[in-house]
Amino acid sequence: MQGKAVVLLSGGLDSATTLAIARAEGFETLALSFRYGQRHVSELEFAARIARAMHVARHVTVEIDLRAFGGSALTSDIPVPKHARAEEIGGGIPVTYVPARNTIFLSFALAFAEVAGANDIFIGVNALDYSGYPDCRPEYLAAFERMAALATRAGVEGKPVRLHAPLLELSKADIIRRGLALGVDYALTRSCYDPLASGESCGRCDACLLRLRGFAQAGARDPAPYAS
Amino acid sequence: MQGKAVVLLSGGLDSATTLAIARAEGFETLALSFRYGQRHVSELEFAARIARAMHVARHVTVEIDLRAFGGSALTSDIPVPKHARAEEIGGGIPVTYVPARNTIFLSFALAFAEVAGANDIFIGVNALDYSGYPDCRPEYLAAFERMAALATRAGVEGKPVRLHAPLLELSKADIIRRGLALGVDYALTRSCYDPLASGESCGRCDACLLRLRGFAQAGARDPAPYAS
Repeated sequence: MQGKAVVLLSGGLDSATTLAIARAEGFETLALSFRYGQRHVSELEFAARIARAMHVARHVTVEIDLRAFGGSALTSDIPVPKHARAEEIGGGIPVTYVPARNTIFLSFALAFAEVAGANDIFIGVNALDYSGYPDCRPEYLAAFERMAALATRAGVEGKPVRLHAPLLELSKADIIRRGLALGVDYALTRSCYDPLASGESCGRCDACLLRLRGFAQAGARDPAPYAS
Repeated sequence: MQGKAVVLLSGGLDSATTLAIARAEGFETLALSFRYGQRHVSELEFAARIARAMHVARHVTVEIDLRAFGGSALTSDIPVPKHARAEEIGGGIPVTYVPARNTIFLSFALAFAEVAGANDIFIGVNALDYSGYPDCRPEYLAAFERMAALATRAGVEGKPVRLHAPLLELSKADIIRRGLALGVDYALTRSCYDPLASGESCGRCDACLLRLRGFAQAGARDPAPYAS
């Protein structure tokens, strides 16, 4: 047994796979989700289902209001960009970038870890993300870990928190293969940035296109429902 | 003119002085406060008064719920320690330490700075704090700044946020002298961890004792009301 680990859990495919990896490595898992004014708030229902299915010891959802600052398609009225194919997704920092989001999420994870006596934090960022989001890059994660070691009582007492990003170098297809091997039920996950009222995923936002291509490349069927 | 700066504003003496310093250095100031389940929530009224008195361009209060995790006298039911004199305050990390609090506060400041186009963040930590709180030490602040430079779009584009802690090396008496010289009205600030229902400060918690001693050493009268 590895002790306790806090796992950031969004309701999406990546964080569900990350949770399965933390469990497979022998950690007692504590899941942490956020209600942050996201458009795709239905993802939180899926986070709860995944947490139950994977028998986490505790699942905490923290309310934060990033809308107080504005500034991103995921938390304001800027339209979510749509494309026909994953290859059309542009380079650079996407408009769906939420300022300092991972820094805020990891800061709460650090507080949760300290209070719960967990020495490890898992986050499901991956190579596809860090082409566009600055706070998904390996050098960012290393700098967060160094800062965290100085921020907490546990760090001062010689037990700094370790930050794990097990998907960092994986393609979406690799992540899906890994998750299927660990028994993740991807029917309990959603990735869409802009789901329909019916609950179906739009199939045309960046998150849907990357997910659909990942399943196709992994030779598996995506069990999530899509608008036809 | 220096551009915009985000100033963390608690309603206490230190952050009010920090705001005055940011203004004196020529920044257009944006104030950021938090409602985080603190016992001493009345401090937020004082934050609003200070923000108005110092003509900040914008004052945002973010709601966060650190009580979801528990673990500190400031956000749970552990009694606030009381002493008769400042010299009795013990060493080590106090029970009023809130896990990862400054990391969470600075993360929100980073988001606000990025959205508002501010390149500077001011925080009112000082030498008295960093004897007890790990996330008030200079090496922690330097590590946060390095992390922040990698976290944001502005950082990636070559304009990393600068973190200012102008009180870092000052004693409480030095801070009060500096604030009085800049015209801070300390009647608009409160420091007490455990104020009475009447609004009077308790006069016996660590924050009250350090404040009262600071005014005495600065040869000034504390305009805040205290329980007799």
